[in-house]
Amino acid sequence: MSHVHATPVSHLTDPGSHGAGPEIDLDAALSELRAASPLVQCLTNIVAANFTANVLLSAGAIPAMVDNSREARLFAGAANVVLVNTGTPYPDTAQAMTEAASGASSAGHPWVLDPVAASLPWRGQIALDTLRAANPTIIRGNASEILALAGEASGGRGPDSTDEAHAALASAQQLAAEHHCVVAVSGPIDLITDGKRVVSAANGHPWMTKVTAVGCALGALMAAFAAVCEPLDAAVAATSLLCVAAERAAAESRAPGSFAVALLDQLSLVSPAELAAAAKVHDVEA
Amino acid sequence: MSHVHATPVSHLTDPGSHGAGPEIDLDAALSELRAASPLVQCLTNIVAANFTANVLLSAGAIPAMVDNSREARLFAGAANVVLVNTGTPYPDTAQAMTEAASGASSAGHPWVLDPVAASLPWRGQIALDTLRAANPTIIRGNASEILALAGEASGGRGPDSTDEAHAALASAQQLAAEHHCVVAVSGPIDLITDGKRVVSAANGHPWMTKVTAVGCALGALMAAFAAVCEPLDAAVAATSLLCVAAERAAAESRAPGSFAVALLDQLSLVSPAELAAAAKVHDVEA
Amino acid sequence: MSHVHATPVSHLTDPGSHGAGPEIDLDAALSELRAASPLVQCLTNIVAANFTANVLLSAGAIPAMVDNSREARLFAGAANVVLVNTGTPYPDTAQAMTEAASGASSAGHPWVLDPVAASLPWRGQIALDTLRAANPTIIRGNASEILALAGEASGGRGPDSTDEAHAALASAQQLAAEHHCVVAVSGPIDLITDGKRVVSAANGHPWMTKVTAVGCALGALMAAFAAVCEPLDAAVAATSLLCVAAERAAAESRAPGSFAVALLDQLSLVSPAELAAAAKVHDVEA
Repeated sequence: MSHVHATPVSHLTDPGSHGAGPEIDLDAALSELRAASPLVQCLTNIVAANFTANVLLSAGAIPAMVDNSREARLFAGAANVVLVNTGTPYPDTAQAMTEAASGASSAGHPWVLDPVAASLPWRGQIALDTLRAANPTIIRGNASEILALAGEASGGRGPDSTDEAHAALASAQQLAAEHHCVVAVSGPIDLITDGKRVVSAANGHPWMTKVTAVGCALGALMAAFAAVCEPLDAAVAATSLLCVAAERAAAESRAPGSFAVALLDQLSLVSPAELAAAAKVHDVEA
Repeated sequence: MSHVHATPVSHLTDPGSHGAGPEIDLDAALSELRAASPLVQCLTNIVAANFTANVLLSAGAIPAMVDNSREARLFAGAANVVLVNTGTPYPDTAQAMTEAASGASSAGHPWVLDPVAASLPWRGQIALDTLRAANPTIIRGNASEILALAGEASGGRGPDSTDEAHAALASAQQLAAEHHCVVAVSGPIDLITDGKRVVSAANGHPWMTKVTAVGCALGALMAAFAAVCEPLDAAVAATSLLCVAAERAAAESRAPGSFAVALLDQLSLVSPAELAAAAKVHDVEA
Repeated sequence: MSHVHATPVSHLTDPGSHGAGPEIDLDAALSELRAASPLVQCLTNIVAANFTANVLLSAGAIPAMVDNSREARLFAGAANVVLVNTGTPYPDTAQAMTEAASGASSAGHPWVLDPVAASLPWRGQIALDTLRAANPTIIRGNASEILALAGEASGGRGPDSTDEAHAALASAQQLAAEHHCVVAVSGPIDLITDGKRVVSAANGHPWMTKVTAVGCALGALMAAFAAVCEPLDAAVAATSLLCVAAERAAAESRAPGSFAVALLDQLSLVSPAELAAAAKVHDVEA
């Protein structure tokens, strides 16, 4: 894609811009998240579990890491939303992932798939198994992961993506159409699509790639917002919240260690109005 | 329970108060913990493992996360005390939990049960299996978990408790009597009972609920103190140490991220005398 | 060993000292690490996973925790280097460890063994199984672990070593000769040997023992450097980087919580020239 034209859609921008979809009310989204405190069942990885839980708590949600095959389906009926992240799958947790996706769907609850390193064949199959069990609400990944999930080759090496988000946009739109879901592709500029509409989110800071599990935590935040918003709005609100908090955190930090601590602080400190004012969210026209 | 009358029992208070049990010497307890550096075998969850180990190290104990079924029993004979926490059980670690409880008991070592989310049937059964293997020294949970372990319904949802500690006091006393142990119920005011005597601990800060695994770390601290104190004193000392450190940490933090870091610092910085002076510990008369 | 004479070998010291091996260019090693950003496959434990990943990211490497038996061998062919750490082995991850070691070796990639608590029989056997699968590039442990791996008794209790590095030097040299690898023994003064040459590294701070997983992170850093340096240089550079960063972090911290955050910052902030200037690295003559 040689040129991307974007028209703003965030809270404070002109709602009449050509090609823009409905305004995404980030102020209302964050207010609602904090008012509702949704219970987010996380089936995530051993690297991200602690940070993900703290990100959710700071943002205003309640994490519950119920990720074994005996309880995953049952708990998905009680939680408000489910996150499935394939970062460190094992035989039992892999089974639990399909059970949880299916359980969430049966209960009418949203669920989010974060297909970490889906280019590896076993976990790629686990991700596909969850998709066969139930259409997700949102799929979140970097470009390599979205390409892999769509069956395309990529230059990714493990969880580190060498592709920019735009390289995966066609695959993202295809996945969104096929699974009737929203697909969010992370990168320096994030792209979020429901298969037709494409929204870009341009906040963030390079240190987000120097702290492990920030991408995993983004998937968890999307799950939390999906409990209180429409899917596209949820993916955009989560991305903007994490990236705006990261900008604020980086401004008061000096390196990745202090940045990670400040990021958790800022997820709690940023107000709904501050989020809406700082977010760089636009509709994209190819 | 409509009225709770409390008489102080902590270090600096009047030992002659009506209804008060023997004075709990928090100064001596923390001094002894730091002098002995007990080795605490932790079978805990993937969310809490890192934070629990750091809490133990900051407080003065030595953590060892030996949580597989091949080594759990053997190591329980070598460690000074064992913690079993059901936060993220898997088939192998679930078996290890019963082995470790049994191994600790056979060796004459104390062990602590933290039945996280015991209202879920599989892990509820795991918790009951460990209790059948050996009477624990201390059971620690929030009100929902204590109610669940005692077979009562509750309003809890996963690890998040909607019940206050007092709602579970009768169940706590029943469990304590049945298993000849101490039961500690966490909440804004913690209640600790050996079945007859009931002690309240009233320090703490709301941010303790905004950092994941703080409750799990409390169970680990109770285990550490149980290696050097009588069970009731251990549960009270652990609760007071964590809650006093949290008050000091909150006073110098601005949000949950910086609070968690300061909490680890304060667990190391607080002196035995400062702990005893700051602790709000009282005997409760119903 | 009653007397240890050491001649300096680090970057700024006299290369002509009697008995000194080739100069170890720490400036070049760290520059190369940051330029190459090696992909480090980590099979590590649930306590260390998050911190290890953050240490690698701060230092300039890319972590990937692929630790299941279905993917471990395949991914070892794609990663630049593999770390096997036996901190919390389970049936599936134990199998993955041997697969990864074998896979790295088959692909001609370096791999590092960190035999945490190898005195426990099951994980001791896992460590030996990985050694039988392929000779490692580096073995890293505290004195108790190195003694256990070499079949000697020790005073260690779990991951906490009660032996100083020198007590394990003969065992380290024997292991190095037997497996044609470098062996690094951690302690207040670290000793690193290829079986003949012995180098001491004397930086560090006592708080390194008050933050969990610092030793595990050292093994991961050795793996990262092993992707860009000769084995002996890699072990020395990793030790010096972590210990110099720790000294800088301790100077600006007050207790283990803030120290851990500052350590991650300093791993990113220390320059190659600062590392070389601060490192206390010497050849040891018995």
